[in-house]
Amino acid sequence: MTFKEGLHNKAVDIEKALDRFFVSDKTKFDQQIIEAMHYSIASGGKRIRPILLMEIGKLYGVKESDLMPFACAIEMIHTYSLIHDDLPAMDNDDYRRGRLTNHKVHGEAMAILAGDGLLNYAYEIMAQTAFEKQEPKYVRAMFEVAKAAGHKGMIVGQVADMVSEDQEGDKTTLSFIHENKTGQLLTVPMLVGGILGNAEENQIKLLKTLGHHIGLMFQIKDDLLDIESTQEVLGKPIGSDEKNNKLTYPSLYGVQASYDLLETLKSEAIVIVESLPGDKIFLKDLIDFLVYRNN
Amino acid sequence: MTFKEGLHNKAVDIEKALDRFFVSDKTKFDQQIIEAMHYSIASGGKRIRPILLMEIGKLYGVKESDLMPFACAIEMIHTYSLIHDDLPAMDNDDYRRGRLTNHKVHGEAMAILAGDGLLNYAYEIMAQTAFEKQEPKYVRAMFEVAKAAGHKGMIVGQVADMVSEDQEGDKTTLSFIHENKTGQLLTVPMLVGGILGNAEENQIKLLKTLGHHIGLMFQIKDDLLDIESTQEVLGKPIGSDEKNNKLTYPSLYGVQASYDLLETLKSEAIVIVESLPGDKIFLKDLIDFLVYRNN
Repeated sequence: MTFKEGLHNKAVDIEKALDRFFVSDKTKFDQQIIEAMHYSIASGGKRIRPILLMEIGKLYGVKESDLMPFACAIEMIHTYSLIHDDLPAMDNDDYRRGRLTNHKVHGEAMAILAGDGLLNYAYEIMAQTAFEKQEPKYVRAMFEVAKAAGHKGMIVGQVADMVSEDQEGDKTTLSFIHENKTGQLLTVPMLVGGILGNAEENQIKLLKTLGHHIGLMFQIKDDLLDIESTQEVLGKPIGSDEKNNKLTYPSLYGVQASYDLLETLKSEAIVIVESLPGDKIFLKDLIDFLVYRNN
Repeated sequence: MTFKEGLHNKAVDIEKALDRFFVSDKTKFDQQIIEAMHYSIASGGKRIRPILLMEIGKLYGVKESDLMPFACAIEMIHTYSLIHDDLPAMDNDDYRRGRLTNHKVHGEAMAILAGDGLLNYAYEIMAQTAFEKQEPKYVRAMFEVAKAAGHKGMIVGQVADMVSEDQEGDKTTLSFIHENKTGQLLTVPMLVGGILGNAEENQIKLLKTLGHHIGLMFQIKDDLLDIESTQEVLGKPIGSDEKNNKLTYPSLYGVQASYDLLETLKSEAIVIVESLPGDKIFLKDLIDFLVYRNN
């Protein structure tokens, strides 16, 4: 099995698990909100966050079924953030991943509620899991997710990104935006994987650094693709960062320096991965994929 | 001390506790989102949900400090739901409790994020408390809150309310809307109070019925005030339900039958309250207040 096949299979596993969370009680209203929530959950994407969580957890010997609720919860939080980001009052996007955005299909009010519903459901699922397992590590994992997704995590990153548009940018602001807006929710799967795997505290620290690096690599690569890819390959218009006066790594550091930074981060990430227990082949391939992907 | 003074003091205690959760790290962006979140938290209101939680918990001998994080979390969830309900895409309200709504002051994008931030923060606070206490009852309480606030609870109630506007209504739909939209978040404080108080399961069932009754009384009274009060006393325009073709108890059952229902519910609620342990004087006064209030 090639890496790409493996990645695809893992994404399919996540999607099957996600689908099982969206079963209606068959009341009319229940069906409407579940349909709106599921529309965006089923809109594809790389499923990087849940896959990272599963991979790290498995390195520490955790059963897939014990990891899956948290993997799905984090994907729901990621999805809610996309639905709300796409709203007319925010980025006002009509398309995402080649499909109409949630509010274009379900209306703006329902899209707001679908986002709210997904965020809340993520915590419902984690709380239920923590209650059933009766082990403090599940509560700790949930607390970490809440911090990462919150107003001192992902949300403040979104605020910073929004407020900084069309402003003279600096490197500190750029780091702040990306460490929070995308970095937090790419880091927390590593933390949760380690926490549920009973990793030592020093290992959890390393996982946090690894998550930070992966988040940054992901963002720099995104910035570079927005300049150097084509609409056909990327599936969305290129050049949108420049058009929207977004702060990006290439715009502040230059293209070559961004590639160099990407390589440095990748080398450091691989060193950390090598120090982890278990079979790291897929995880290393995944890091390569994130750095060398073309969409 | 009169009941009104007692109620006021309890609301002030909740507000002081809430305020302590909104301290900025002094980064520019952090201050902006915290300000937007705190704007609506500080916008007054009766603080009925947290007060109910504290009162029930205290009947079972729980320390105030052990109840307060959950009381604040539920008030944050209530507040986020108001911010999102007021948005232009939803009810498009410019004023709430005599102050400009969140999006009129902070802009629509920031109001969406402030709502998201409050919802997420509620779970962060509950998860932190549950992690620090290391007792399963805190996790159970959090799970109950998540179910009540979620897409099979408060959110589906909002969906039903939205979808039913301007439609031929029936009593089943009316019950469904209110049991979910307002009922769930008025019931769950009773549940949490009982759960944190180690109440027996049969008592928790009674508390759930009591919460259901309080929620319904609250709603019927709101519907009646919208017909019979004045803008001066109510602090907002009256007659808005009729104008918006909302399903209400008076419109479906008639005014007198609504008053009768209110009295029946109140008698049943008082019977349950009498069966609870501890000093129930304030709780009984509170129920009277909810039924006979004029705003």
